[in-house]
Amino acid sequence: MRKLWSMYLLLIVCFGGYVYVQSFHASSVDSFHQAGGGLKGSNDEKYVMITFQSGIDYWKNVLKGFEDAAEVLNVSVEYRGATEYDVQEQINVLEQVIARNPSGIAVSVIHAEALTHTLNKAVEAGIPLVLFDSGAPMSKAQSTLATDNFQAGVTAAHKMAELSSRRGKVAVITSPNQLNLQERTNGFTETIRNHYAELTVIAVEDGKGDPYFTEQVTRSLLKQYPDLSGIFITEANGGVGAGNAIQAANKEGIVKIIGFDTNKGTLDMVRSGVISATLAQGTWNMGYWSLLHLFHLRHSDSKHISPIPPRVDTGITVVTQNNIDTFYAK
Amino acid sequence: MRKLWSMYLLLIVCFGGYVYVQSFHASSVDSFHQAGGGLKGSNDEKYVMITFQSGIDYWKNVLKGFEDAAEVLNVSVEYRGATEYDVQEQINVLEQVIARNPSGIAVSVIHAEALTHTLNKAVEAGIPLVLFDSGAPMSKAQSTLATDNFQAGVTAAHKMAELSSRRGKVAVITSPNQLNLQERTNGFTETIRNHYAELTVIAVEDGKGDPYFTEQVTRSLLKQYPDLSGIFITEANGGVGAGNAIQAANKEGIVKIIGFDTNKGTLDMVRSGVISATLAQGTWNMGYWSLLHLFHLRHSDSKHISPIPPRVDTGITVVTQNNIDTFYAK
Repeated sequence: MRKLWSMYLLLIVCFGGYVYVQSFHASSVDSFHQAGGGLKGSNDEKYVMITFQSGIDYWKNVLKGFEDAAEVLNVSVEYRGATEYDVQEQINVLEQVIARNPSGIAVSVIHAEALTHTLNKAVEAGIPLVLFDSGAPMSKAQSTLATDNFQAGVTAAHKMAELSSRRGKVAVITSPNQLNLQERTNGFTETIRNHYAELTVIAVEDGKGDPYFTEQVTRSLLKQYPDLSGIFITEANGGVGAGNAIQAANKEGIVKIIGFDTNKGTLDMVRSGVISATLAQGTWNMGYWSLLHLFHLRHSDSKHISPIPPRVDTGITVVTQNNIDTFYAK
Repeated sequence: MRKLWSMYLLLIVCFGGYVYVQSFHASSVDSFHQAGGGLKGSNDEKYVMITFQSGIDYWKNVLKGFEDAAEVLNVSVEYRGATEYDVQEQINVLEQVIARNPSGIAVSVIHAEALTHTLNKAVEAGIPLVLFDSGAPMSKAQSTLATDNFQAGVTAAHKMAELSSRRGKVAVITSPNQLNLQERTNGFTETIRNHYAELTVIAVEDGKGDPYFTEQVTRSLLKQYPDLSGIFITEANGGVGAGNAIQAANKEGIVKIIGFDTNKGTLDMVRSGVISATLAQGTWNMGYWSLLHLFHLRHSDSKHISPIPPRVDTGITVVTQNNIDTFYAK
């Protein structure tokens, strides 16, 4: 009987000891401040993503990246979008989100000047703020994660050189008044000029970001330069227009087209070979690394965590017939 | 007696249950592949950082960032530096590291063309590779984490405008043949031209990256433009030279100097007010986020982990008398 009691006691001591050790372990894991605990938050941390034109496909992959990071980091996320292309609606949505004092906010900015005041309110309220896809350079946001448009143009130029065996005449169709498209154009033309002596950019035309106009512009380029080897279309809408013009002239595969983004129309023409390649932006990266930045800002009291990088180029993937399936799937 | 036995049994069941629950919890924490597990590796993962001129202070903070990230992520790191400014030595060190097949390698590249072949060997061997501080644009490295030098020039321009009340004549002293210094110069001059109508860049001079030459150039600038309001020195060595010239002319605080980096000589002159500000590069960020990138590449088999951003601007901090102490401490 006494033996039984002492066994009993021993068991209780063991159990207590085990609980103590485990709870110590658990607490070191729950807080990544402690060495070796990993980057891990808690479920009551809520991070909010805000876009505009919330219905469009482009955001799906951004949100997927944001959600994937949240799952890994063990935190919660919420998605808010202004449904229309409406500056005031995005300001209102942002004001509402700030009022709820979330753990962090990631915003794709519809209009840099108009939003800067409200964006700064978030920072002044101590809420971590990062911008993705389109930023607001004069705001107090701690970082911007977006496509480096100049580098996207550089990538297009190298791909064009590969497609045209590094020689011949190429053209650009763009919207000359849009800053991001100017940067894509500059990256393209400077790279052709500096790296490919036998390739020449013979024209930079205005396609008005419209398939119909781009088709007309392509038709006249084909007439003016019958030996044209390629066209780089700097934005999402023109690719299909250029493709139509090329088909009408029976020049599929002879005049190489490089488009931008992964609209279904563009992807269909890549699959059928009318468009040689299109440039996919790193949308998943935008979402995933936005949340990683916000998480670091939220936990910046830790001795290990310092200010985050102010600018991240989320990158470009060249989409061709070889890898197109993943882009349809997304 | 029977009561005691059943208590005993109950206790054993409780204990068993607790152990089961806890071990389940622990396993979900050890692997970040599982939802909510956090980003956490294992001690047998070893990541290697390679620099050149390994003795210089500049790397200390980079290594600190690398180590801090390793502590958080529960992985191991190792530091290898070529001691001299010697291309062949860095190639040899890199070859040795590749042969040991580590979990990832971060390299600050001494010479882009000369190193590209060896860098590519690492990638072809399936070893994650990122570059920091100075990159190799034509290599297969998966990302580059470094100061965006154009943006550093932009930051210098805004600071110069603030210091000179947005008006007057300013000059740049640089080394015209070095690409990173050209970019800093362009960022500075373009920002002054586009944003500050009453500020003019009246000269861009060659200081040869040397304190003595920079002092001579500053003396002649002061003679030629007695109403000069400021000078931006684009690299680390010239700041002290410009400071000496300003002191000799009794123009401390009248001609505002913005230097680069945080050499002790430059910091001393910031403290004494001869140099108005200097630009500190985001060295801790380079190390910390390099390891985070390598970790993601290493674990990219997980469904949550996708390719990393190809370029990160690790940022600039403007160092003045107000915040100088942290930079001495580091």
